Amino acid sequence: MFHAPPRVLLGPGPSDVPARVLLAMAQPTIGHLDPAFLQLMDGVRDKLRTVFATNNAMTFACSGTGSAGMEAMLANLIEPGDKILIGVNGVFGGRMVDCASRCGAVVEKIERPWGQVFTQEEIIEAVDRTRPALVALVNAETSTGAHQPFSKELGEAIHSRGALLLMDCVTSLGGAPVKVDEWGVDAAFSGTQKCLSCPPGLSPMTFGPRAMERLDARKTKVQSWYLDVAMLKSYWGQERVYHHTAPINMLYALDEALNIALEEGLEARFARHRAMHELLREGLSQLGIGYVSQEGFSLPMLNAISIPEGADDLAVRKRLLTEYSIEIGAGLGAFKGKAWRIGLMGNSATKRNVALVLAALGEILGR
Amino acid sequence: MFHAPPRVLLGPGPSDVPARVLLAMAQPTIGHLDPAFLQLMDGVRDKLRTVFATNNAMTFACSGTGSAGMEAMLANLIEPGDKILIGVNGVFGGRMVDCASRCGAVVEKIERPWGQVFTQEEIIEAVDRTRPALVALVNAETSTGAHQPFSKELGEAIHSRGALLLMDCVTSLGGAPVKVDEWGVDAAFSGTQKCLSCPPGLSPMTFGPRAMERLDARKTKVQSWYLDVAMLKSYWGQERVYHHTAPINMLYALDEALNIALEEGLEARFARHRAMHELLREGLSQLGIGYVSQEGFSLPMLNAISIPEGADDLAVRKRLLTEYSIEIGAGLGAFKGKAWRIGLMGNSATKRNVALVLAALGEILGR
Repeated sequence: MFHAPPRVLLGPGPSDVPARVLLAMAQPTIGHLDPAFLQLMDGVRDKLRTVFATNNAMTFACSGTGSAGMEAMLANLIEPGDKILIGVNGVFGGRMVDCASRCGAVVEKIERPWGQVFTQEEIIEAVDRTRPALVALVNAETSTGAHQPFSKELGEAIHSRGALLLMDCVTSLGGAPVKVDEWGVDAAFSGTQKCLSCPPGLSPMTFGPRAMERLDARKTKVQSWYLDVAMLKSYWGQERVYHHTAPINMLYALDEALNIALEEGLEARFARHRAMHELLREGLSQLGIGYVSQEGFSLPMLNAISIPEGADDLAVRKRLLTEYSIEIGAGLGAFKGKAWRIGLMGNSATKRNVALVLAALGEILGR
Repeated sequence: MFHAPPRVLLGPGPSDVPARVLLAMAQPTIGHLDPAFLQLMDGVRDKLRTVFATNNAMTFACSGTGSAGMEAMLANLIEPGDKILIGVNGVFGGRMVDCASRCGAVVEKIERPWGQVFTQEEIIEAVDRTRPALVALVNAETSTGAHQPFSKELGEAIHSRGALLLMDCVTSLGGAPVKVDEWGVDAAFSGTQKCLSCPPGLSPMTFGPRAMERLDARKTKVQSWYLDVAMLKSYWGQERVYHHTAPINMLYALDEALNIALEEGLEARFARHRAMHELLREGLSQLGIGYVSQEGFSLPMLNAISIPEGADDLAVRKRLLTEYSIEIGAGLGAFKGKAWRIGLMGNSATKRNVALVLAALGEILGR
């Protein structure tokens, strides 16, 4: 049997999974149409609605990782030739551009230097200029640590211009406010392995009434069979029409991860993430390490920081892993070799871990 | 915490998962780029090659269930306008037709009544008539229990006509011979929850040299970002380029399920499936119950049988589940209300389970 080495997961995800979640997942597999399993799915759906702050009927866990959720969102809502405006200020906005163009969209981009966010004014200005059918923004840019604001006003402005608002909240869900209904978000996707501290393998998703109308009015079939929300709706809804075999044990795990999040309470959970972020920031500042994300817009759960002058990126991360069993993340794309990413997500966001990573970094950097 | 009820899984999958697999899966999650995890992936790949009887470099586990594997196979190998010939004699051939047409293929079908298989001659005749770029056949039609023969000669005949041969072996892999290289299969996909007795959530896949050439020669991007094999190749290969976060704990589980299969030995495992199938068939015959699949072409691991005259489909299955904790499968599509599907897959294929399901059916049917 493979033996997983002990790790403290302080990278961009996965985060440390609580024993309760691992134990829930290790229960015997049952059938995907078993009455007990269907009841579990109903519970997962209800709890996901709470976490997404939405009443959307079509709220579910897509049977793939966060990237599958991205593709499900885009493939269902784009018809060939549709125009989509995508905010690109890091890897994950760029990924949506690639995916949307594979769905046949005409892609318009607004761009910002990596680490920065978009103002409401520039988003609305771009919508007025490009007249898209869809606007897609990343709430938590995992590659840069930047926290893109959403608001009721932004959602209303986009709707009043006839477009839908789509959101990537892979890294924020469960760790910072994600208010799907209040912000007027029409479709959103997330991942399980970030602030929900569940193993990777599912993508929590939600589609609002405007998005479902758009789906119903499609003239062409969704290009993906596996991710076709019209069919998934019949499985997750009361009809229970067989589509594919759900990843059963992964859903046991997600259910328990959601129980833990809701027992803590979302507001308390968000406050804990903010507090641990501030503690880390303070300690890093004493080590002379700053952030690459725009001031005032840092993600609490993902700290993208400058690699200090003279430090060897790979060697430091290797020592953290082998000497201290700590995983932190490398820089991605434009930040490769320039940034580290320290995640304090879900179960990993503790005083113990903040103290540990600061101590280890201090020792290795000799500061 | 959700409590999974005790079940004996004798349906069309999932099958009963061994405790060893559940325990392997319950180990702490580690990073998807952790050296220990990358080593696990290499092992999984090697073991999958053995199970698929192939030397194909691009052998891996796709991060979704079997249906995602189907889509990955078709989306990567079809370019818009390509002609594909698909054998349709049950639900899963029909599903490939739907998926291939969403990929922009011109779909030609050969059809057979449900439960029957195609002869080599009629497949080759159809290839000559339609001149497809791809031929896709279901090795184990889970909806009908029919076992479609593949052979070296069939593969050669298809290649000599310039086409690639694609195979759905979701239900057969690990339970009956699947000889990818010998049969000249260019791409194949499977599932984990059938004869490998791992929870659902991954799709073992393999792409041969001809398929990889076809991929390299594509003029258009693969329509799916999530399932793009060119990118997955860089993650599963030595480059280890980040694409998406693999379902880490599911891969722990698959690794251990493969260990168990290879410890038993593939030939011994196939023999066990055949023996349990014969035992069940004999017992069913004593209950006056026959098969809906063509004589001589029954799948060993999935027994599709006629619902006896006078028996209430739903009531019998409900009593099996509630009184005996046994899950069997309902009929799908054309066989809805007409057939039951008794799976004896992987860990579920035991004398104990054969005796149990026969005893329970005998009591409920009063025979």
